[in-house]
Amino acid sequence: MAKNNDELFKNVISHAKEYGFVFQSSEIYDGLSAVYDYGQLGAELKNNIKTYWWKAMVQMNENIVGIDSAIFMHPKIWKASGHVDGFNDPMIDNKDSKKRYRADQLLEDKISRYEKDGKTDKAEKLQHDMDEALKAEDLPRLKALIEEHEIVCPVSGTRNWTDVRQFNLMFSTQMGAMADGSDEVYLRPETAQGIFVNFLNVQKSGRMKIPFGIAQIGKAFRNEVIARQFIMRMREFEQMEMQFFVRPGTEMEWYKHWKETRLKWHLAVGTNPDKYRFHDHTKLAHYANAAVDIEFEFPFGFKEVEGIHSRTDFDLSQHQEFSGKKMQFFDPEINQNYVPYVIETSIGLDRFFLLTLINSFEEQDLSTADKQDSRSVLHLHPALAPYKAAVLPLTKKDGLPEKAREIMNRLKLDFNMAYDEKDSIGKRYRRQDAIGTPFCITVDHQSLEDNTVTIRHRDSMEQERVAVDELENIIAKLVSWKNILN
Amino acid sequence: MAKNNDELFKNVISHAKEYGFVFQSSEIYDGLSAVYDYGQLGAELKNNIKTYWWKAMVQMNENIVGIDSAIFMHPKIWKASGHVDGFNDPMIDNKDSKKRYRADQLLEDKISRYEKDGKTDKAEKLQHDMDEALKAEDLPRLKALIEEHEIVCPVSGTRNWTDVRQFNLMFSTQMGAMADGSDEVYLRPETAQGIFVNFLNVQKSGRMKIPFGIAQIGKAFRNEVIARQFIMRMREFEQMEMQFFVRPGTEMEWYKHWKETRLKWHLAVGTNPDKYRFHDHTKLAHYANAAVDIEFEFPFGFKEVEGIHSRTDFDLSQHQEFSGKKMQFFDPEINQNYVPYVIETSIGLDRFFLLTLINSFEEQDLSTADKQDSRSVLHLHPALAPYKAAVLPLTKKDGLPEKAREIMNRLKLDFNMAYDEKDSIGKRYRRQDAIGTPFCITVDHQSLEDNTVTIRHRDSMEQERVAVDELENIIAKLVSWKNILN
Repeated sequence: MAKNNDELFKNVISHAKEYGFVFQSSEIYDGLSAVYDYGQLGAELKNNIKTYWWKAMVQMNENIVGIDSAIFMHPKIWKASGHVDGFNDPMIDNKDSKKRYRADQLLEDKISRYEKDGKTDKAEKLQHDMDEALKAEDLPRLKALIEEHEIVCPVSGTRNWTDVRQFNLMFSTQMGAMADGSDEVYLRPETAQGIFVNFLNVQKSGRMKIPFGIAQIGKAFRNEVIARQFIMRMREFEQMEMQFFVRPGTEMEWYKHWKETRLKWHLAVGTNPDKYRFHDHTKLAHYANAAVDIEFEFPFGFKEVEGIHSRTDFDLSQHQEFSGKKMQFFDPEINQNYVPYVIETSIGLDRFFLLTLINSFEEQDLSTADKQDSRSVLHLHPALAPYKAAVLPLTKKDGLPEKAREIMNRLKLDFNMAYDEKDSIGKRYRRQDAIGTPFCITVDHQSLEDNTVTIRHRDSMEQERVAVDELENIIAKLVSWKNILN
Repeated sequence: MAKNNDELFKNVISHAKEYGFVFQSSEIYDGLSAVYDYGQLGAELKNNIKTYWWKAMVQMNENIVGIDSAIFMHPKIWKASGHVDGFNDPMIDNKDSKKRYRADQLLEDKISRYEKDGKTDKAEKLQHDMDEALKAEDLPRLKALIEEHEIVCPVSGTRNWTDVRQFNLMFSTQMGAMADGSDEVYLRPETAQGIFVNFLNVQKSGRMKIPFGIAQIGKAFRNEVIARQFIMRMREFEQMEMQFFVRPGTEMEWYKHWKETRLKWHLAVGTNPDKYRFHDHTKLAHYANAAVDIEFEFPFGFKEVEGIHSRTDFDLSQHQEFSGKKMQFFDPEINQNYVPYVIETSIGLDRFFLLTLINSFEEQDLSTADKQDSRSVLHLHPALAPYKAAVLPLTKKDGLPEKAREIMNRLKLDFNMAYDEKDSIGKRYRRQDAIGTPFCITVDHQSLEDNTVTIRHRDSMEQERVAVDELENIIAKLVSWKNILN
């Protein structure tokens, strides 16, 4: 990570903490690794992102409906999906320190080391060997690579390693209280299966006709061994997934449709198109016949934010086999029963949240010839901003606070509003800039005379004077979802 | 449960399934006990209830902010809160069937049996004895009562019982992958502790001054042994909780305030006030100095939907002790540091969802002298209804569907809309009645001539003709949150 990028990332993290966007979970107990809490502004931003996705996917599309399935599911579901047998990380223990590591992470750290030392050939060779071993799930080969490259345990400093073994990433717990042994259930590692197992219920009760989609927002859990990069890879995270059921043979046109549609969704809130790229999967999962990632350039490089996957009929067929229930649709147009094919769009809510913070954060130099000056500002899209506007009486006397509260009490029926009367007006503007409030409504002495106020625009810092009676309409237009839905 | 009530409850459950409000979780795998999924209309209704609560609590109150803390928390938190040691159910095993039961449930079933058999004296005596034993946590006494009243295992039919033992209701799981033994963490059994441990973070980063509140909506988990009554008591459920931090000595006035404010919230969406009552706790939990339940009369009797609790400084003081961090507020008005007192409002989202369905459901007799007729209708408040309106072309030809879609495409930018062109208009009205859509917009031949449509009101079934250009404003006014926020 380049020095500038490193600094940007650190600044975003500390800004997120300072202004109540993201806190380390259980911080007063020295934290819980790879788990984070959303603070008072983070919760609002996160809710607005959810609303944006839900409106764009469900409200705007007559043939997409949303569900909310439970985190607990029947354990057989994870047999059928392949997660019980195949959702593993290759782990290795150091016998001296008793510490456990992901084998591929040890190797990747070595590759970085080679690169830093200018040993590009060695780095490339190891990368290639590791990729081959991972692809073939060749665990002895992974161990051999660790030994060949003389990798030591960061704690004990020794090379006294166990064999590499598979370690399942699902969290499990015991449900019920049977005297004769309890039932093991898993915390879902993805929300998608909650959609697949409800396919028939939704299709029938909702009288849905193919093509149609089922959308869902919800928590998922993965027992990541090494969690890194702030909220980028957490053990508890949130997904926004949509499974679109189509007639077999038409999946490629829908794949193309969703690939384009989803990128538009990302860009509509003002993210920089230059920071985005598609990354086509060349090695496809066994259930997919096409897959692409929408990647964003984070300070630590291009990373997946969303995946569009053509999953064929794999999941529904597996559930048909494991549950014994027919997971089929009778298509009246071609007079046939079939197991539908599926295009999935799956976005990490926390990653998009992080992307939004990074993309909108600016340390802006406002210096003039006479004076050094700067501000921290979040250029959040008004529809996503935690507060839509702040009401600020210019001073704390002369009836200005009373007038300001009158305006506040009206606007808060429609919008999430901030109110601030402490410190100088300049300081208050900067505070609202720092939390991304797009508009500041200032009540001054003229307001008492002609019932007007000024609106200050966060990005341009320009002010205009408007009638108080027009405020609701003006703000409503500026923050409307209509501006980004299409 | 009286026969009528029994039938009403059954009808609500089957209506909820038939129209896609609630499905049994993992139904194709024969279900997962005490876990449910929200279907395509349930998810919308649930989201609207969340929005209603969030707007009323957070948006309308300048001194209340909302957070979103993780389900996983540091295990010490549940030591401090008392859940590790005290969150138990008394369990007893039958040695022959190897089945485990909640001791108090066995006794309650016996009490019901006595009542059905007209043995009111016996029922009352046992109820009293059981309450005493539970209050004293006297496990041998509970076992003695089971033996005295000759209670048999419903499976084996024998009285071959083990002792009564405590069984913790928290789900636990292993986090991380330490070679030297993993860390046990719990799934939170309540969302409140996520608020307490973030008290300092929110107060400081949000510059909050007492009195202020922190609100949260989120999942909680309890390993209930006997889960009953549909979504009333689930193992995975959702809470909407608010902790209001006040100066010690002022808690009773705030307790009164929140008791009244919360009941108003319930009634504002049109629930019948006669179905509500306050139930004051006479036996207080050790941390409380006042507590009241808001109860609703479900078909199976009055049950708690929300609790208002004056929790003193118990939780913050416990966390101060267990974490070693000062959980205090410096109050500039009295120039003092103190651990704030807390008033909690805690509502079960799923219970309020069920209440809303039951309260709004009607099998309405529409028979006239000439003709028998009836309809199923959900009289949901327009702000809570899954669809705000449905657009229905009178027939499928003559350009009516095209005109209807034109209207649909405009309105869906603002509202969650339904569109339906299948079957007779009468059938379509009934379908929308059954899912609670408050307004049906019908496009007929006159619409093509003068650009007007009819709006049919769900509850009165009356129709009025309005200009298409007025539709957005008319619907916006009818479904506005302003109608229920104050």
